[in-house]
Amino acid sequence: MFSFPPSAGPLDKVFQYIDLHQDEFVQTLKEWVAIESDSVQPVPRFRQELFRMMAVAADKLQRLGAEVDSVDLGSQQLPGGQSLPLPPIILAHLGNDPKKPTVCFYGHLDVQSARQDDGWLTDPYTLTEVDGKLYGRGATDNKGPVLAWINAVSTFRALEQDLPVNIKFILEGMEEAGSVALEELIRKEKDRFFSGVDYIVISDNLWLSRRKPALTYGTRGNSYFMVEVKCRDQDFHSGTFGGILNEPMSDLIALLGSLVDSSGHILIPGIYDQVAPITEEEKTMYEAIDLDLEQYRNSNQVEKFLFDTKEEILMHLWRYPSLSIHGIEGAFDEPGIKTVIPGRVAGKFSIRLVPHMNVSVVEGQVTTQHLEDVFSQRNSSNKMTVSMVVGIQPWITNINDTQYLAAKKAIRTGYFHGPVYLFGTEPDMIQDGSSIPIAKIFQDIIQKSVMMLPLGAVDDGEHSQNEKINRLNYIEGSKLFAAFFLEIANLHS
Amino acid sequence: MFSFPPSAGPLDKVFQYIDLHQDEFVQTLKEWVAIESDSVQPVPRFRQELFRMMAVAADKLQRLGAEVDSVDLGSQQLPGGQSLPLPPIILAHLGNDPKKPTVCFYGHLDVQSARQDDGWLTDPYTLTEVDGKLYGRGATDNKGPVLAWINAVSTFRALEQDLPVNIKFILEGMEEAGSVALEELIRKEKDRFFSGVDYIVISDNLWLSRRKPALTYGTRGNSYFMVEVKCRDQDFHSGTFGGILNEPMSDLIALLGSLVDSSGHILIPGIYDQVAPITEEEKTMYEAIDLDLEQYRNSNQVEKFLFDTKEEILMHLWRYPSLSIHGIEGAFDEPGIKTVIPGRVAGKFSIRLVPHMNVSVVEGQVTTQHLEDVFSQRNSSNKMTVSMVVGIQPWITNINDTQYLAAKKAIRTGYFHGPVYLFGTEPDMIQDGSSIPIAKIFQDIIQKSVMMLPLGAVDDGEHSQNEKINRLNYIEGSKLFAAFFLEIANLHS
Repeated sequence: MFSFPPSAGPLDKVFQYIDLHQDEFVQTLKEWVAIESDSVQPVPRFRQELFRMMAVAADKLQRLGAEVDSVDLGSQQLPGGQSLPLPPIILAHLGNDPKKPTVCFYGHLDVQSARQDDGWLTDPYTLTEVDGKLYGRGATDNKGPVLAWINAVSTFRALEQDLPVNIKFILEGMEEAGSVALEELIRKEKDRFFSGVDYIVISDNLWLSRRKPALTYGTRGNSYFMVEVKCRDQDFHSGTFGGILNEPMSDLIALLGSLVDSSGHILIPGIYDQVAPITEEEKTMYEAIDLDLEQYRNSNQVEKFLFDTKEEILMHLWRYPSLSIHGIEGAFDEPGIKTVIPGRVAGKFSIRLVPHMNVSVVEGQVTTQHLEDVFSQRNSSNKMTVSMVVGIQPWITNINDTQYLAAKKAIRTGYFHGPVYLFGTEPDMIQDGSSIPIAKIFQDIIQKSVMMLPLGAVDDGEHSQNEKINRLNYIEGSKLFAAFFLEIANLHS
Repeated sequence: MFSFPPSAGPLDKVFQYIDLHQDEFVQTLKEWVAIESDSVQPVPRFRQELFRMMAVAADKLQRLGAEVDSVDLGSQQLPGGQSLPLPPIILAHLGNDPKKPTVCFYGHLDVQSARQDDGWLTDPYTLTEVDGKLYGRGATDNKGPVLAWINAVSTFRALEQDLPVNIKFILEGMEEAGSVALEELIRKEKDRFFSGVDYIVISDNLWLSRRKPALTYGTRGNSYFMVEVKCRDQDFHSGTFGGILNEPMSDLIALLGSLVDSSGHILIPGIYDQVAPITEEEKTMYEAIDLDLEQYRNSNQVEKFLFDTKEEILMHLWRYPSLSIHGIEGAFDEPGIKTVIPGRVAGKFSIRLVPHMNVSVVEGQVTTQHLEDVFSQRNSSNKMTVSMVVGIQPWITNINDTQYLAAKKAIRTGYFHGPVYLFGTEPDMIQDGSSIPIAKIFQDIIQKSVMMLPLGAVDDGEHSQNEKINRLNYIEGSKLFAAFFLEIANLHS
């Protein structure tokens, strides 16, 4: 199955260059992580950081020789009537040889919120290396992989070696906030920027393992809900009003408590109706995946999962919907004690969707059918409003697409030149429980092959405290992308 | 019943002086409100402000001629192992005439948390007058009333008029955080500072009405609980882990959802067992209280309360326990969206207690009997820990105490000289649904008459956004305290 030892090939110099320049590549990542490009908190300070991030990236691409277009997207209206400018989306291209395939790389440069006092061991915006791990917000999601792709391109340029493919970039700054304005831009650019694109590559998820590369052929969707319960805008003092009010928090807790049971089963009527049945062929695929449950538990510091077998766990991450309650806005959330009855609170929860669930159907099931029913049974004098603030369809693709085959070959080649532990491996064929809406959007609009080629290890902690990318994954990932350029060029011709 | 018009008396000049100097008194309140003496958030910045507040108050009393002792209370150990210095408690006395009664005034100079973006219309730490209302954090709770007492004393001094009573002050800076170290100090000072004290006055609550003064003879207690559910310290990403975890938020929501029903009835078994039965005599008292329900609803901007009659509402505020859920620490509480599964969350709720409920009994009912039972039924792999972080016994006193009679006379007198709307009124005899633990502590330790003599109107919004005290209440309250000095001296002798 593996073709090793491979003959000394056209990539030897490329790999050598990447090894020799790895500290420079890490330094650039450090500079990018230092920019607090938080798109989750809609405040001017972070928005400025987002603009700075996009400008730094545009400059980087220009210095690579790319033609760069930073597309102004205007402003975003926030629920309170406020408006904030949107960071531009970068469209860039490098090479225009009709004999070569054109590969478009999608990435995002915004990050989730992070504060050191959330439990970070290091400053989240200072990339800090400990035991070969590069800790920092955005290190793996998604600044590291974006730079790995740029590193691969810049290595060909530095060596004055011909790039085997034409390269395009689409880099956005609002992914963590629902990719505001992105879909519209893709539609608009369908017959312009995207007209020559043959393949679209996304590297915005993680392996299933800490050591074994993976290719991803499906992602769950997501429908994110806000349910607000309001008595009045002002808070109350629990001594002065406790006992005579329908307290908004009690209503909200009851609403949130009606969503999911302790076994993880979603209690919203009809929610499982559209879930695609699991085939025998699929079951076989799941059995083949190499997942050490003991190590998975340990590396995630989770004593016990809801399920005990590999297949059940993977299917509940990839093939079944899940519901998570994220938090409550407007209640007392600080350390210490406060005897407050919050006057208006908003609960936030989301449902991860799988084929063939549909966001519109789910929206109806959650709002008009379920929550309004539960609320009316409470006979509360408060006002409830529910809205779905994000709706992302699930995505699935064909694992026999040309670029999946090219990526498999690149993983063997690329990693052969890397450290021994990644030696000539066959990637896990996986799905991702997360929602990366862009895959589905590209598939639907551009109608070209979309592949997700992750670089980060399963323990990278994206969206969490102490996010990191391994130096090895970042550097070997840069090589992998270089190898992929060659393999896709070969298979395409 | 009323003795008016009263003869021109010894207080004429006092009242005139207070009227003439009211802008100075408001200015001093402004300076005190500007000090962000937040004791709720245990962080060094606010602790420094608390120290500054106590120093300013000590200086003020010294300039009145009082002997002031700022008692160092050492440090406070916080749950995380951190330690913070405690602000001193001020013990002060002025006058030592054995022929006069000694009245000790208790007040606190710390405040609840306040941030303008919580919904304040003005900066919470800049006292701002709008239509005769002085808006600012601490304006009514409790800086305004403390200063009103000081204004009364300082007026006698300025006029070189003999003070009818010996005055003592005990002023603390940790009331909103559970009066840390206060009870211990009172015990220690029982036979020293408190040895000559005849009466203790507290002015740390509100009238039942916007316009009619009140005297308070009972307060509810409070037991404040934190229930923490932990899977691990780090958060999870809901895409990567949603579907395979016992999510701490689901557990916590179920725990909080088991506490109280939508009618306000507490669901913890046994919780009502120790509530004193309501007597026929009490019912008559409740009927006599003047409460305009329509106006009460409007002034509080509440469309509908849980009960429709005055008696039911008042009894559910004073005579029955209530349970409020305050919020959740550790979950996503900011604006915007975040697809996080919090790894460790802590819910906060409290139960207001009435005679003859006991904090220790309630602690057992909530923790070992109820919550542990509910949690074990969930069969969750997470860890739950419950702790009662504040326990305050309910308080009730005899409404025929000498100082209650003196205060009633003072209310008639004092307000006669004030604006017509407070003309010669008989105060409402009320209880307070809030917990002012100090009343019960003084009663138990010092064993002297304790009276609560509020100055603030019912719509002052203590603990809430846009807290205020009316200029009228602040200034007429200063007169009321002056009149009380005279009346208690007369009745005592």
